[in-house]
Amino acid sequence: MGQFEGAEIVGRSWWGWGNDEDAVRGAELETLLTRVQALMPEELTDHEPPDISSLDLPGPRVTPPASLAALCSAEPEDRAAHAHGKAFRDVVRNLHGDLRHVPDLVARPAGERDVIDLLDWCSREGVAVVPYGGGSSVVGGVEPRCDGHPAVVTVDLGRMNRVLEVDPTSRAARIQAGALGPHLEDQLRPHRLTLRHFPQSFEFSTLGGWLATRAGGHYATLYTHIDDLVESMRVVTGAGVSASMRLPGSGAGPSPDRLFLGSEGSLGIITEAWMRLQERPRWRARASVRFGDYTAAVAATRAIAQSGLNPANCRLLDAAEALINAGVGVGGGLLVLAFESADHPVRPHLDRAVELCRDHGGEPAVDTDAESGGDGEGVPEKAIGGDTPAATWRSSFLRMPYQRDALARHSVIVETFETACTWDRFEVLHHTVTEAARQAIHEVAGTGVVTCRFTHVYPDGPAPYFGVYAPGRWGSTVAQWDHIKDAVSEAIHTCGGTITHHHAVGRDHRPWYDRQRPGPFAAALTAAKTALDPAGVLNPGVLLPAP
Amino acid sequence: MGQFEGAEIVGRSWWGWGNDEDAVRGAELETLLTRVQALMPEELTDHEPPDISSLDLPGPRVTPPASLAALCSAEPEDRAAHAHGKAFRDVVRNLHGDLRHVPDLVARPAGERDVIDLLDWCSREGVAVVPYGGGSSVVGGVEPRCDGHPAVVTVDLGRMNRVLEVDPTSRAARIQAGALGPHLEDQLRPHRLTLRHFPQSFEFSTLGGWLATRAGGHYATLYTHIDDLVESMRVVTGAGVSASMRLPGSGAGPSPDRLFLGSEGSLGIITEAWMRLQERPRWRARASVRFGDYTAAVAATRAIAQSGLNPANCRLLDAAEALINAGVGVGGGLLVLAFESADHPVRPHLDRAVELCRDHGGEPAVDTDAESGGDGEGVPEKAIGGDTPAATWRSSFLRMPYQRDALARHSVIVETFETACTWDRFEVLHHTVTEAARQAIHEVAGTGVVTCRFTHVYPDGPAPYFGVYAPGRWGSTVAQWDHIKDAVSEAIHTCGGTITHHHAVGRDHRPWYDRQRPGPFAAALTAAKTALDPAGVLNPGVLLPAP
Repeated sequence: MGQFEGAEIVGRSWWGWGNDEDAVRGAELETLLTRVQALMPEELTDHEPPDISSLDLPGPRVTPPASLAALCSAEPEDRAAHAHGKAFRDVVRNLHGDLRHVPDLVARPAGERDVIDLLDWCSREGVAVVPYGGGSSVVGGVEPRCDGHPAVVTVDLGRMNRVLEVDPTSRAARIQAGALGPHLEDQLRPHRLTLRHFPQSFEFSTLGGWLATRAGGHYATLYTHIDDLVESMRVVTGAGVSASMRLPGSGAGPSPDRLFLGSEGSLGIITEAWMRLQERPRWRARASVRFGDYTAAVAATRAIAQSGLNPANCRLLDAAEALINAGVGVGGGLLVLAFESADHPVRPHLDRAVELCRDHGGEPAVDTDAESGGDGEGVPEKAIGGDTPAATWRSSFLRMPYQRDALARHSVIVETFETACTWDRFEVLHHTVTEAARQAIHEVAGTGVVTCRFTHVYPDGPAPYFGVYAPGRWGSTVAQWDHIKDAVSEAIHTCGGTITHHHAVGRDHRPWYDRQRPGPFAAALTAAKTALDPAGVLNPGVLLPAP
Repeated sequence: MGQFEGAEIVGRSWWGWGNDEDAVRGAELETLLTRVQALMPEELTDHEPPDISSLDLPGPRVTPPASLAALCSAEPEDRAAHAHGKAFRDVVRNLHGDLRHVPDLVARPAGERDVIDLLDWCSREGVAVVPYGGGSSVVGGVEPRCDGHPAVVTVDLGRMNRVLEVDPTSRAARIQAGALGPHLEDQLRPHRLTLRHFPQSFEFSTLGGWLATRAGGHYATLYTHIDDLVESMRVVTGAGVSASMRLPGSGAGPSPDRLFLGSEGSLGIITEAWMRLQERPRWRARASVRFGDYTAAVAATRAIAQSGLNPANCRLLDAAEALINAGVGVGGGLLVLAFESADHPVRPHLDRAVELCRDHGGEPAVDTDAESGGDGEGVPEKAIGGDTPAATWRSSFLRMPYQRDALARHSVIVETFETACTWDRFEVLHHTVTEAARQAIHEVAGTGVVTCRFTHVYPDGPAPYFGVYAPGRWGSTVAQWDHIKDAVSEAIHTCGGTITHHHAVGRDHRPWYDRQRPGPFAAALTAAKTALDPAGVLNPGVLLPAP
């Protein structure tokens, strides 16, 4: 069997986030541990990840046909690295060497024909197929918990990573599903175009994964999810390749793409898409606004969300979030605002947004480089320096998953959860969910911290994103977290929030998703699944019950 | 059986558009006929619509159960008025008394319970059900051509026309599906809120119809279709009521609402929806820009569409459209631009858009009342006076369907068709479709006029809307138009345009829709239909083949 060690594989941590060389160490680790130790009742102790050779994985239960053997790897390193996503519970289980479900094979198709052949073979054999992009799922979406199937093949689309075609007139590109964020942007840069979809997982997630999970991206308003950036898609299903037309808009029946957006590999394997692009922004303006009162900060954020100003960034950090991740002490909250445009100055919009904040008692600090008119490199925000609270928060944003791993090694429970609700429900939801989290933390860990920020805002409601930090006991942190997660999910559901705004359903959100999804729609989706995946092999148990 | 003559029924033309009292007559008719006569080889002769009593409709083939009898009408006036939509071919067939397919009964449910009971009864009896809002379909979407069913009941939702609940904090309202545009806005006005969805059919179409057909509205950019204004929906299906959650955004699986948006009554009957509202605009700025060259006008329009300025109006009229409907003689085209906001001045955006036009050789005329800061009545554009080309075009816009009827009575072929395509394909599509229309007109009518305007524009492409005017022969104009329509539909399909951007599929677009819809998606949709409508009674033949 072949083995592919692309640049994106070598150096990647098999058990945690990102690249081994970027792990938190040295002074950064010292600072982090000192800060967190203050919250913890006991001394923090480090636990090394196990060596893969010590895991003693059982052999693969299936052998690929000769025609597909060259695409498939049964190497323990490959199989272990594809066993889990990148949630806290995934990282901790990896640290414990707890790999109960491991794919029998990791297949790396080089093109659509390979994907079709792989799906055909698995459908014939009844072997479960787990489509895999960057593997950054935090909801069990790539975990091969496929009971009832004789074997599982994870189809890693990493080799299908090319921008195949660029249409500069319509500003669109045909891109293969396996392209990781930076590689995708690298290929667009010579055309002076950008997709400008920067989820926190940007470096280690793919276009196909974004589409399959309706990923939330860079923009706090308007183009919040990847959905609106899609012109057309190609999806390999058990009923053939579904290829939609390249269209800027259409009203011809229910949208074909909207059925596959969010289908999480359960209806087909996305192989490529025509995506809407933009010119790189040339004008940017930013401000941070401090509020003494959280309710006033929420009201100001709502006013901006309903103003039609459409900021690119509109992140309201509560006091705990501002302190931990932006290094700012505020009584109520810190609102991080940014506007950007490739065509025209945006300072008037920033000024109006700041005025709305002042109306609600906010104290703004407009960035000194406000209304920069640079060359529009359009790189992710991490490349933008500065020592403002906003800049601190941005750089912290991309380090968070690495810090999470370092803390997980020290038995600290560090995880996030997210939702969205209408504005009229937010106050009660925020209170109820925070209290549910605190109570659950109290029950399993004694003490801890709950933070909240808005990742996206809409005219009719915010998408709050919560963080949990609590001292765990080595060997029990997954169970401790699961208890907290159950409590907050129940509270979100009770308060009318979605069980997921942009983390997807996977396996972990199923109990609540099943209750939130309209019954007749569930029947329609199940029928669609049967039509597209008659063998029932596509990511069984994700989104829908395994047959 | 009961009979309901709501305000919206009395005075409505049974055979043509809108209200009888608003028909084109007197000086308006004189002017119209004089203008059109210049294009026509023969004298125009008027043909009166037949009297309904002369139609001799066959009796209804079904009797409702006693529990539903009070909701059902078998009056010839009701049945005739619900036999056709409002396309040219509908109006002409009405004028000829050609009502081949007439509903056996017209049912008017007073609430969701009635809708459920009606669908249950029809499902049991195998009677076809045609959901009916304002009846303004131009694609045969409400025509009961339901071969193979023993009878047809048209379910007219006109009595379910209330705004049930308003959430001023989230700016949203729960609205019944049968609310006609003006009545809906009337109920929102006391709350100083507006849905701001103004299709050309605004006065005679309903919320439920807009949702079922993915109607295109007021906004030329961003919120082009009704789709993005939906928070949640309730849909009565054969598998129960599908009720989605009120959410500002979500990433939990494929969107339930997106399956029903565009389902055209074939998957269920929409009874109500939570809709996103806005404050009434207070700032408005407008301009008209003349271009000597159409290619330059298209390039300017594309630059604006890709600028992120997001004008509310961005209608490029070609020379023929500008002359006929805006009374302006231009060599290349007339671009009508408008910006609006409830929160902030929009003149800087207008100025930038005008600058982009100048870059492409446009000659702008900024409206003298530009940047008005009125009280934001938010009424449809017809209420805005003025004698600018833009104002002339706007007032013409709402008279067009009435003028169409007057001309149809005089054997003139007057109809429109529409599409959307990416910018890279537009030049070829425009040329090919225009030539196909001219050739077909030449074949069936000798001479005629083809016009084009953009109704909506996207960063990646325009939505061109074509008009056809040609002299017909009384008794043959439907066949003549069908020949033209076939030719242009084939040309649109060949050039990569959607068969419909916002008129929906209905029955008339099926031959092309069937070819444009991805095969696996068709299989999924058919399976979903079977799950939601096991009896196969919901609008059979629309969107999907009749079982």
